[in-house]
Amino acid sequence: MAGSTLGTIFRVTTWGESHGKGLGVVIDGCPAGLALSEADIQSWLDRRKPGQSKFTTARQEGDRAEILSGIFEGRTTGTPIAIEVRNQDQRSKDYSAIMDIYRPGHADYTFDAKYGFRDYRGGGRSSGRETIGRVAAGAVAAKILEQLGIEIRAYTRAIGPVEISPEEFDWDEMNRNRLYMPDAKAAEAAEDYLEEQMAVCDSVGGVVECRIDGLPAGVGEPVFDKLDANLAKAILSIGAVKGFEIGDGFEAAKRKGSQNNDGFASREGAKGRGGIYKKTNHAGGVLGGISDGSQVIFRAAFKPTPSIARAQETVNRQGQERTIEIKGRHDPVIVPRAVVVVEAMAALTVCDLMLLFMTSRMDRIKGFFEQYR
Amino acid sequence: MAGSTLGTIFRVTTWGESHGKGLGVVIDGCPAGLALSEADIQSWLDRRKPGQSKFTTARQEGDRAEILSGIFEGRTTGTPIAIEVRNQDQRSKDYSAIMDIYRPGHADYTFDAKYGFRDYRGGGRSSGRETIGRVAAGAVAAKILEQLGIEIRAYTRAIGPVEISPEEFDWDEMNRNRLYMPDAKAAEAAEDYLEEQMAVCDSVGGVVECRIDGLPAGVGEPVFDKLDANLAKAILSIGAVKGFEIGDGFEAAKRKGSQNNDGFASREGAKGRGGIYKKTNHAGGVLGGISDGSQVIFRAAFKPTPSIARAQETVNRQGQERTIEIKGRHDPVIVPRAVVVVEAMAALTVCDLMLLFMTSRMDRIKGFFEQYR
Amino acid sequence: MAGSTLGTIFRVTTWGESHGKGLGVVIDGCPAGLALSEADIQSWLDRRKPGQSKFTTARQEGDRAEILSGIFEGRTTGTPIAIEVRNQDQRSKDYSAIMDIYRPGHADYTFDAKYGFRDYRGGGRSSGRETIGRVAAGAVAAKILEQLGIEIRAYTRAIGPVEISPEEFDWDEMNRNRLYMPDAKAAEAAEDYLEEQMAVCDSVGGVVECRIDGLPAGVGEPVFDKLDANLAKAILSIGAVKGFEIGDGFEAAKRKGSQNNDGFASREGAKGRGGIYKKTNHAGGVLGGISDGSQVIFRAAFKPTPSIARAQETVNRQGQERTIEIKGRHDPVIVPRAVVVVEAMAALTVCDLMLLFMTSRMDRIKGFFEQYR
Amino acid sequence: MAGSTLGTIFRVTTWGESHGKGLGVVIDGCPAGLALSEADIQSWLDRRKPGQSKFTTARQEGDRAEILSGIFEGRTTGTPIAIEVRNQDQRSKDYSAIMDIYRPGHADYTFDAKYGFRDYRGGGRSSGRETIGRVAAGAVAAKILEQLGIEIRAYTRAIGPVEISPEEFDWDEMNRNRLYMPDAKAAEAAEDYLEEQMAVCDSVGGVVECRIDGLPAGVGEPVFDKLDANLAKAILSIGAVKGFEIGDGFEAAKRKGSQNNDGFASREGAKGRGGIYKKTNHAGGVLGGISDGSQVIFRAAFKPTPSIARAQETVNRQGQERTIEIKGRHDPVIVPRAVVVVEAMAALTVCDLMLLFMTSRMDRIKGFFEQYR
Repeated sequence: MAGSTLGTIFRVTTWGESHGKGLGVVIDGCPAGLALSEADIQSWLDRRKPGQSKFTTARQEGDRAEILSGIFEGRTTGTPIAIEVRNQDQRSKDYSAIMDIYRPGHADYTFDAKYGFRDYRGGGRSSGRETIGRVAAGAVAAKILEQLGIEIRAYTRAIGPVEISPEEFDWDEMNRNRLYMPDAKAAEAAEDYLEEQMAVCDSVGGVVECRIDGLPAGVGEPVFDKLDANLAKAILSIGAVKGFEIGDGFEAAKRKGSQNNDGFASREGAKGRGGIYKKTNHAGGVLGGISDGSQVIFRAAFKPTPSIARAQETVNRQGQERTIEIKGRHDPVIVPRAVVVVEAMAALTVCDLMLLFMTSRMDRIKGFFEQYR
Repeated sequence: MAGSTLGTIFRVTTWGESHGKGLGVVIDGCPAGLALSEADIQSWLDRRKPGQSKFTTARQEGDRAEILSGIFEGRTTGTPIAIEVRNQDQRSKDYSAIMDIYRPGHADYTFDAKYGFRDYRGGGRSSGRETIGRVAAGAVAAKILEQLGIEIRAYTRAIGPVEISPEEFDWDEMNRNRLYMPDAKAAEAAEDYLEEQMAVCDSVGGVVECRIDGLPAGVGEPVFDKLDANLAKAILSIGAVKGFEIGDGFEAAKRKGSQNNDGFASREGAKGRGGIYKKTNHAGGVLGGISDGSQVIFRAAFKPTPSIARAQETVNRQGQERTIEIKGRHDPVIVPRAVVVVEAMAALTVCDLMLLFMTSRMDRIKGFFEQYR
Repeated sequence: MAGSTLGTIFRVTTWGESHGKGLGVVIDGCPAGLALSEADIQSWLDRRKPGQSKFTTARQEGDRAEILSGIFEGRTTGTPIAIEVRNQDQRSKDYSAIMDIYRPGHADYTFDAKYGFRDYRGGGRSSGRETIGRVAAGAVAAKILEQLGIEIRAYTRAIGPVEISPEEFDWDEMNRNRLYMPDAKAAEAAEDYLEEQMAVCDSVGGVVECRIDGLPAGVGEPVFDKLDANLAKAILSIGAVKGFEIGDGFEAAKRKGSQNNDGFASREGAKGRGGIYKKTNHAGGVLGGISDGSQVIFRAAFKPTPSIARAQETVNRQGQERTIEIKGRHDPVIVPRAVVVVEAMAALTVCDLMLLFMTSRMDRIKGFFEQYR
Repeated sequence: MAGSTLGTIFRVTTWGESHGKGLGVVIDGCPAGLALSEADIQSWLDRRKPGQSKFTTARQEGDRAEILSGIFEGRTTGTPIAIEVRNQDQRSKDYSAIMDIYRPGHADYTFDAKYGFRDYRGGGRSSGRETIGRVAAGAVAAKILEQLGIEIRAYTRAIGPVEISPEEFDWDEMNRNRLYMPDAKAAEAAEDYLEEQMAVCDSVGGVVECRIDGLPAGVGEPVFDKLDANLAKAILSIGAVKGFEIGDGFEAAKRKGSQNNDGFASREGAKGRGGIYKKTNHAGGVLGGISDGSQVIFRAAFKPTPSIARAQETVNRQGQERTIEIKGRHDPVIVPRAVVVVEAMAALTVCDLMLLFMTSRMDRIKGFFEQYR
């Protein structure tokens, strides 16, 4: 099926495998008149590139984005935008020794079960490089949202057992350490923890947290295309994600109604109707699947990177038991690289729902057509 | 937008509000030749009905399912199946005192922000009664899956801070207590906890866990329509859900690769290709978004019921601050009632992806058409 | 698959068979705040009812529309609108004699081939009664379009070889004869022709023409969801339709560019940008799949009604050759009854594309959100 | 909106403008294991290339297809297939003189009305070069259908008023003349007619007819995704198409039931159930929107090419009246070039519906999963 397409109005289709000729995305439904250039895309792609840290992979990628359609004189034309990145440095031989073996924690086995065979080089379509298309599209979505006063920022909340602390939270710190943690002390502790794990050829997971500001109340389409439901799907679709929670998430399950309910209040200048705002935000900005005007805040749990240099028990395609040690270039932790992917998926989701929001009310539709016919 | 539709091949559209004439669903794309009757639907609806416990609401619903199309001589015809339940006992006056007030934790405010006005009676479309359509459709999907050897079972894993224990796990116990907890001791502790909260007019959340057995390897459509991504969306679309995790979920974020990877092994009779199976299942049955043949296991976090009889600070439509006490009939805990809803959403998701799975391989498609042309 | 759903934002799902309990539609994505009542639906349904003419079927249907959801205090709430009509008078025995026989020109054989068996009573899902759902939905779409200054009017252009004449065209005449022909002379000639065919137990086809006024320029989504492409699909989906053409249609294929091109001109008060309008309209109001501000005009060709009382050669389910005479109640011509169906399908198509049109331009989107945030 | 995407399971998204960097398509949902190479795509693209006839444009295009993903060791992997063609020879200056002018019969005006501005070079997204993506995708779809015994062949049925004759019909003749007419005499008369029109700087339309053989009975998804409805949409989405008809089409509207009904008969070896076949085929292979096992035959009407070198009255963006003579390179007739486009669109439509057909019956689904689990 068409599993590589996401969105209803702002619809994106990604393509490409780790060791194919390239990877990319086609964005359909981008409104016309948005200023857009390759630099806009590149800045996002650069945030997913490995090689920026001793903790991330040695594989050089040098991904350069090229826009092939949908732009004229610096602005989007409203026609499909094709963005592509050609693969430069694949080093096939790194994987040849394991072409018939199912690496634990990877999708080798499941791709074989689904398709009958697979491109075994570097994970093929299940490789982390697949995120190139998502991130390029997310960059465009984010540009639209910027025009509408919406800002999306994600960061590393935890590396393994090391979590940031609310008291130490500092947005500026995020870009001063290589783990994108907005807490200097936690970043340092996390680096120590990573050193320990690398020394024993092990890998580590973590949590990315994301905040969306500026979203008006009313965004989300009950009952199935709720804002939180679509965010959950977008986030769970990222490789290695095993959990999603919004607001107080799983903690809310242990609370009581008197603790968890966000009361409403009113004051001059508050954004909601009649100056309405919420005094707390246990809900994480979503009520009944629709944004309530507060900050949307959610978290994604990443499992530890499956590729480790230790020996592991597994089988090959014929079902014969084998021991595998995955040599070559791979990340002991992918969480810092996934921060931009989480932002991109959130941008895609919110952008599409913002456009769908425009058709909710007859009076707004009438007003739209009167002014612009 | 069409937010009330879910699915690609097995597609369902639900409708209905708490205090309207009724609620229902239209199922489109159900294969022909499936034996189906109203009894099949009713047994599922009965599991969501309140009144089965002193902990659930006093509101009598007496929901009777009626099938209006898509069945002939006891079997589905392949044409759309319309199922409906007419509302019997609404008691509008329970809500009239609060028609202009935004109840904290409910979608009153967000529906107003989205649509400009709302059916204020009983939560309208955001009411828990909206799950009638989902559950009816899930009953049909589950019947298809049963034909394909797939079984879905959910249960209450936690009520507030009271969790079941793996050592005490007993499937039979689940239907012997009113909380659907498969652990007698935990069920008793949970009942005590609930008594305490009811006494102080408070409410409680919890966690529902769900297991899917019999799923062949290969189900799920990368990269966006992955099995876990679609499950996440389906589950987060249920009212009051604030989190989703699969396999070890958020716990995996704290683990290391050597602990989290599921190794493969081989033995006679195991289901996978060449007798392949996994020795552990930290992944929860999904790798790269595709089922791996192991049991799929996931959890949904439910926030505490927003309607409590205590006084709460809020505002009305004009932005004036008000204090509200929500009298009337409402649940102090909805988790036990949500168990069947979680099963239904899982059934809808899996059924659709099983049908999509049929088109993955050219050899299977050729074989299909040779035999049946 | 979900073949009974149409639309992206304004999405409708129809259900029901000729001899089932009823028929209906669920409309999802209707904007909130539209005044709507059962009378609005009923007036459209009444135009498809048989029994209004000696040329249409004797079968009494008495279809009453009931709205079950999505309306509150006389206005749409933005939530799904379920409309249903319960079947009253089916007279199953009319069809029992032919339950195993494939009637020529009907979908009996193809439904059997597709599903393995079928509801043989009255055509089941392939019956003309299936249009009840379409027409009910079209009534709602038309109400929205009325709010936006768009009018859709269809009429009978031809009954068999009898065509209306441009010189005799008179909108008022359309509602003064039973064939909905806006030409008194042609209507009379057509009635004579129909008398002749009825006398020899034969049936007749015809052409319905439809005009859409008030559509702004810019509606339609290249390259696949063009306005004319979506109209074609909607119209061809009506039973018995074998052709669709827009503007000069098949005639244009014989013309030359100098004859067929519509030149542009300018005058004060003309609707287009800078007072632009077209001096001719061979294109039928669509250029490059997008509306150009002129009247949209298209035609649908209907084959003659398959059910005739004459003897026909056919086979039964076992492949044995049989002769069949279809007694019972059926129309010698369905074209007049199809006029409202053509209008309904046009309304559904245009309504959905109008809503999609709102998201074409960044400047309009920004303006929308500034005013209404 | 996402108007550049077509299909449900076999889903294609095209991109590219006449004078952008290139054009292409992403095919999502192609089954794995199909042998595919660039040569397969190129042979189809070559059939749309101009320069093969003195009647087609002098513009040199030299389009070379490149496959960037979705193939491994010569077979499709089941992952998205990205195909692209880089633009070589655009000659922008041909169009610079008319950048502000609305060419009659072209989509200049409507694209401006929709998006606020447009890429005025060569028609931008509305250019005939946009068909590159469609044809590349159609080549892949046709390869799948070939595996399933389905053949699609289109040809020129008419150039202006010159039509082929059934008595002279000869498949081999089609590839012996430059107009793809399977009738030598008609081809000669058409060439004479074209010479006359070119001499007076005028252009010509025509009709393409298409036949589909080998389709099993049962393909098509009532009531909206019928086979004929989806074919109509696919064909009408091709630029310059103004009409679609299937079987006897508009002629059927003038016939009587006794003439138009196709009776069923039975004989050993006939494809249908119990050896069922139809003695005539006025229906064109579709009954109730579902294939009946006969040959599917339909026609597309093409308007004359809008770009002619004669003076035409028009306006510019500011609404000022202008006279325009479109110099440069353009086709006096596009119909022969459109033959492969019609085949491609038919292939895309049929391929998607064949895959959807697999999920119609519970017994077939059960059988599928038993054999292949």
